[in-house]
Amino acid sequence: MIAEVVSVGTELLLGATIDTNAARLGEVFAECGISCQQRQTVGDNLGRLTEALWLALSRSDIVVTIGGLGPTQDDLTRDGIAAALGSPLLLDPDLERTVREIFEKRGLRWVDSNLRQCHRPACGVGIANPHGTAPGLWCEKDGKILIAMPGPPREFGPMLMGPVREGLARLGGGGVIHSRTLRVTGIGESRIEELVRDLIDDEQPTVAPYAKTGEVHLRVTAKAPSISEAEVILAPVVAEIHQRLGWHCYGEDATSLEAAVIEALGDRRLAVAESLTGGGVMSRLTGVPGASRVLAGGLVAYTNAIKVAQLGVDPGVLAEESAVSETVARQMAEGIRNRLGVDFGLATTGVAGPGPDDRGNPEGLTYLALSGPTGTTVEQHQFGMGREINRARATQAALTFLYRSLKNTS
Amino acid sequence: MIAEVVSVGTELLLGATIDTNAARLGEVFAECGISCQQRQTVGDNLGRLTEALWLALSRSDIVVTIGGLGPTQDDLTRDGIAAALGSPLLLDPDLERTVREIFEKRGLRWVDSNLRQCHRPACGVGIANPHGTAPGLWCEKDGKILIAMPGPPREFGPMLMGPVREGLARLGGGGVIHSRTLRVTGIGESRIEELVRDLIDDEQPTVAPYAKTGEVHLRVTAKAPSISEAEVILAPVVAEIHQRLGWHCYGEDATSLEAAVIEALGDRRLAVAESLTGGGVMSRLTGVPGASRVLAGGLVAYTNAIKVAQLGVDPGVLAEESAVSETVARQMAEGIRNRLGVDFGLATTGVAGPGPDDRGNPEGLTYLALSGPTGTTVEQHQFGMGREINRARATQAALTFLYRSLKNTS
Repeated sequence: MIAEVVSVGTELLLGATIDTNAARLGEVFAECGISCQQRQTVGDNLGRLTEALWLALSRSDIVVTIGGLGPTQDDLTRDGIAAALGSPLLLDPDLERTVREIFEKRGLRWVDSNLRQCHRPACGVGIANPHGTAPGLWCEKDGKILIAMPGPPREFGPMLMGPVREGLARLGGGGVIHSRTLRVTGIGESRIEELVRDLIDDEQPTVAPYAKTGEVHLRVTAKAPSISEAEVILAPVVAEIHQRLGWHCYGEDATSLEAAVIEALGDRRLAVAESLTGGGVMSRLTGVPGASRVLAGGLVAYTNAIKVAQLGVDPGVLAEESAVSETVARQMAEGIRNRLGVDFGLATTGVAGPGPDDRGNPEGLTYLALSGPTGTTVEQHQFGMGREINRARATQAALTFLYRSLKNTS
Repeated sequence: MIAEVVSVGTELLLGATIDTNAARLGEVFAECGISCQQRQTVGDNLGRLTEALWLALSRSDIVVTIGGLGPTQDDLTRDGIAAALGSPLLLDPDLERTVREIFEKRGLRWVDSNLRQCHRPACGVGIANPHGTAPGLWCEKDGKILIAMPGPPREFGPMLMGPVREGLARLGGGGVIHSRTLRVTGIGESRIEELVRDLIDDEQPTVAPYAKTGEVHLRVTAKAPSISEAEVILAPVVAEIHQRLGWHCYGEDATSLEAAVIEALGDRRLAVAESLTGGGVMSRLTGVPGASRVLAGGLVAYTNAIKVAQLGVDPGVLAEESAVSETVARQMAEGIRNRLGVDFGLATTGVAGPGPDDRGNPEGLTYLALSGPTGTTVEQHQFGMGREINRARATQAALTFLYRSLKNTS
């Protein structure tokens, strides 16, 4: 079964509303084993809406519209569906009774424009909307299925996850499209592709890389009669990717790098001294429930004076080598480790930008240091494409450095 | 000029990615007075992508693609464009030099698959991408314009708001739809609506509130022949809103609350002691260029031991009143102010959740303290809807508290 979505609403084209409904619908299609191959988005214009529906019906088995079912003059989806299916709109007494009851129950004044919401194409039936006044529609004609759902997410969500999902699961014939996402850090997208290219070329399961800030997600997807059968197809490929990418593949699905770091710490404790990243590393770590068990805390040491007074950085080194140097990173990591009496001290220093610092260090130059029971190691990076991204990349690199060290790999 | 968007990526159809880029592009079209009438979304499939582009080129003057410009085998947008325009792909030596330079600068290993990103249709030119390796494309053929932009929002955003927006404004010719966004903190959306309801009902300029985390954006929009004429329409309404909302309206457009705080600090210096927010306040402040002039630094004091040793919090108070108390917040703010020798000390303590803390303080209970030259004040909040949102709201509330105090208003 091939499906297609038609999202309706000028606000979507103007960018005033982000189409989160379509994304949720996409997840349900995948779950139900229905391949959604296209989406069209049109404004509140009957001509263009009808054309979009014609096109969708010409190439897809299932067409789902989102939005345009309300009572006002610019809610045109019912009319578009009637035109595209060649099935006239009828006033449905059951729908009218239901909508009138909602008005009474909520103590709202009845306005006759609401009768628009009580019409359905002759070939369709209403879908109950317990969270609003606009019923959905389920139409079947000439072997095609057309489903219409209201746009407000509060109404759309329950209708999707209730009757529509049930109907789609039936149409999908029980099959599912099931994915696992492997999260990969410390290695570029093109290098990952080199390492797993033969797997990307496979049809079942499919493997697709998605670049995120400082990391890559590899989505492995299988089509199967059930989730457990899909898992059987996914498992060897997931294991193979773990094998090829080693520590770089730090987790799956919703596991964040900071959560993986906290798990890898076990009962060892960490403190952080941040200059460049200005609290970003600690902010990510403390976002994980239970972070307080392993993260003692740390210092944002934005000035040289504080690096000296609070971390014991040598003023002579600051003068000679500048704050953005291997030695200062090392002394910051050792200083925070000693000061807070923890197992690991992690430090960041660098030039966020814009532009080089007053010592001529280039934008994006970054030193990361990790001090632990076996000594201190320092990593140098050269980022350099804007303040925000430099800080984000340095934060990711610091967590990656820590994770790799905890995994005892290099 | 009629425009159309083609968003490319199987992840969009699967619902794994929400198409925020298309919404941003929609806003820019509106600003430039270009009518965007359709959007198509297709997966990483060359046949369907090419068909979508044919259809778009047949009915629209400007077609903009989003995504599919990366180096991997499933990045097919360049090929689709070449096919749809009938304009063969050429390796562009300038693009190759630029992309190779990025790899060198970042110390990344070159992989030949990156050459895919250095190709352009014969009828096109590259658009520089300072935030990634994939250049955009600007193609013109047979009176149609086709623009291709990369999908990662960090690359898409700057390219859109820079060269592409400039080009679209030129194409849009005469009229513009121009907005100013007033940023409002420390007051709820419904109260704001009460205060400006008469302005919301106006047709020109329009005033629309958008709720964000802990703040509200009021977008004031006018349609006029030019931006300067739109500004004339906007100015009195913007001034009226400032008048009605007072200090709550802390800035406009891209001005963040943290930037407004740093400006309000002037030459006074700040240090921060964070428990609940775990570095979030400092991370936002240090995201502003020049933050180092006013932010000395600060401490993330996640454990009681560190609150005592590093901030001088009284262990007796911790035992009696717990870490989540007015007194501890006060002592943290005073401790960091004295320790780092700055004008203002800001402190956060609270229960992020999930669930109450081991002293029975409820999830979301938060104390904020600000110690300054005239004494220390404490604010209590009760949030309580999940860890991530509690931390974000507490961070926003701390910055709002500081901003209001700096503005000497209550």
